[in-house]
Amino acid sequence: MKIICTQKSLAASINIVQKAVSSKTTLPVLKGILLETEENKLKLVGTDIELGIENYIDAEIIKSGSVVIASKILGEIIRKLPDSTVEIEVDQDNNTIFRCENSEFTLLGHSSIDFPELPEVEKDFKYSISQDLFKSMIKQTTFATTIDETRPVLTGVLMEIKDNKISMVALDGYRLALKQGNIKTLTDNKVIIPGKTLNEVYKILSEEDNDEIEIYFTEKHILFKTQDTRIISRLLEGEFVNYNQIIPREFKSRVSVNTRSLYDSIERASLMAKEGKNNLIKFSIKDEKMSISSNSEMGKVFESLSIKLEGADIEIGFNSKYFIDVLRVIDSEEVYLNFINNVSPCIIKPVDNNNYTHLILPVRITN
Amino acid sequence: MKIICTQKSLAASINIVQKAVSSKTTLPVLKGILLETEENKLKLVGTDIELGIENYIDAEIIKSGSVVIASKILGEIIRKLPDSTVEIEVDQDNNTIFRCENSEFTLLGHSSIDFPELPEVEKDFKYSISQDLFKSMIKQTTFATTIDETRPVLTGVLMEIKDNKISMVALDGYRLALKQGNIKTLTDNKVIIPGKTLNEVYKILSEEDNDEIEIYFTEKHILFKTQDTRIISRLLEGEFVNYNQIIPREFKSRVSVNTRSLYDSIERASLMAKEGKNNLIKFSIKDEKMSISSNSEMGKVFESLSIKLEGADIEIGFNSKYFIDVLRVIDSEEVYLNFINNVSPCIIKPVDNNNYTHLILPVRITN
Repeated sequence: MKIICTQKSLAASINIVQKAVSSKTTLPVLKGILLETEENKLKLVGTDIELGIENYIDAEIIKSGSVVIASKILGEIIRKLPDSTVEIEVDQDNNTIFRCENSEFTLLGHSSIDFPELPEVEKDFKYSISQDLFKSMIKQTTFATTIDETRPVLTGVLMEIKDNKISMVALDGYRLALKQGNIKTLTDNKVIIPGKTLNEVYKILSEEDNDEIEIYFTEKHILFKTQDTRIISRLLEGEFVNYNQIIPREFKSRVSVNTRSLYDSIERASLMAKEGKNNLIKFSIKDEKMSISSNSEMGKVFESLSIKLEGADIEIGFNSKYFIDVLRVIDSEEVYLNFINNVSPCIIKPVDNNNYTHLILPVRITN
Repeated sequence: MKIICTQKSLAASINIVQKAVSSKTTLPVLKGILLETEENKLKLVGTDIELGIENYIDAEIIKSGSVVIASKILGEIIRKLPDSTVEIEVDQDNNTIFRCENSEFTLLGHSSIDFPELPEVEKDFKYSISQDLFKSMIKQTTFATTIDETRPVLTGVLMEIKDNKISMVALDGYRLALKQGNIKTLTDNKVIIPGKTLNEVYKILSEEDNDEIEIYFTEKHILFKTQDTRIISRLLEGEFVNYNQIIPREFKSRVSVNTRSLYDSIERASLMAKEGKNNLIKFSIKDEKMSISSNSEMGKVFESLSIKLEGADIEIGFNSKYFIDVLRVIDSEEVYLNFINNVSPCIIKPVDNNNYTHLILPVRITN
């Protein structure tokens, strides 16, 4: 193989496909990135079997071929090369020479024969979704998945496509995040996508510049496709929790409050809360005031906020971490906090739209 | 005690004095910052006994007094408060209330009685030095100190003041850094300042905005003084190495090369070198060319640079880390590399001035 491409595009491409390469694998070939010529393009591929990422860059193909190069050192080298063209030449023993201006690196490559092929995802069910919507759906749900591998389905996000609506749901036993959007479709579908996959998709979408992303499914796999990148992931098997029956619909108290002020106050109160256990903070809501308090061995904190309250006064305790996580991903200026009583979940919603619902379970407080 | 000050100045001041607070100390009072009123100022003090930092901020003093507050939580809280005024009130049990807009924190403080007093440094020998010169002297020498506590004097930097010259020297057995500047003085002096102290002085000077810094000595201590800050450090005892006789004065080969190109090439070559041992890179200097090469199990690298050479060709090996460290702190566009032979030290100097000398010992290479 012999090709010429730019350092910039090669570095960007390595950055993308590296997200699927695991440093923990025991198979040396999986620590590598596959470089393969394809017509007038160079294809780069990284995979850890669960997740595979392919990216294409423009290249002048002088001689077609392929090679696998250790991912970490390849990335370090290409990033440090000057902004110029890079010539890559592979000999019959997979020794690979990278030439760029006055630098010449020779790396010992592996044969591409041992590199696993990414599964084919048939293009039967195609959905197109705007990148901005899909990014906000990932951002507002994926953090609520669990990392506890004993409940595998909860490490993933349920994606439900039905009646021209797309919903994404994540929950971990203490909180639930539900985001909905519009999508044009003829076929309904319901899959559980690993949280890790969605986090990587989010990063790649943020680096690339696309209007739309295409999504395809088979029974076991999902494919995300942008102009230059294909991300293929296995799906999680199992039945997702029936989330609709968890979300309460009627409330006794509704607070509307400035999102940023609430976030800042909770963040400050949590400084004291984290010194104790549980990150426990207490809300006291009465009339037009909400106070947030917390105690630890080091001292105590008392924050007060102006709010609008409809309904009954309430005192209720929470793990501050869950509020910080959700308030960080809500862009709306104001949020609603909906309460039933101090042992029932709180529902957080942006005031200006109805597409996002977040549920947090309270912590029992003793006075 | 009861005072009012701004959140901004309080946060900045905590940031400065915190540099002297050790998280590792077993004495709880040393994990704290002393807050003490002094005329119309609030004084903050942090110390780990070796190093003490005092900083003054403007404050409205309603009731004079003092208290010691745990440094870490204090910094976290004050940084998160809004850009407004902060009221600090201490009761007779050292319970300290911080009020800022809608936030109220109560922290359990300690009595200032147990807080160690910083040593008095008499103002007999005063030196004034421009902040820019002193910062560059620290930056170009302190990294060459050793962290090996078995040779205590080498964890410090020798400061020599003589004949209106100030010199700072650091060495660790593999390299030596010598920086010189002009200073107006009537008295000669020679002290060894802990490297850690100088690193903190550097950071504080970078945060403050001063033209000049004043330096005072006693036999055991040094005081650095800017408008609002006093940094007091113990000095290191012992005899410093007679560095003058280590630096060779005559050379067989002199290379002049672009500093940035040399840095970039060595940095790339070191990617391969660090996979092996010693970070070993090899310079081959011949005619108008210098090549830098390195090998490891993963492959090899070959960098070439245009240079000007006066004198004999040479092949010589180095630990790339030492070159990266020194080239990072030289601002001049071009540097001289002076060689005698491949077992003698290399002397690096900026081309455009004679105030900085850096020595690096070579590594023996076998072909």
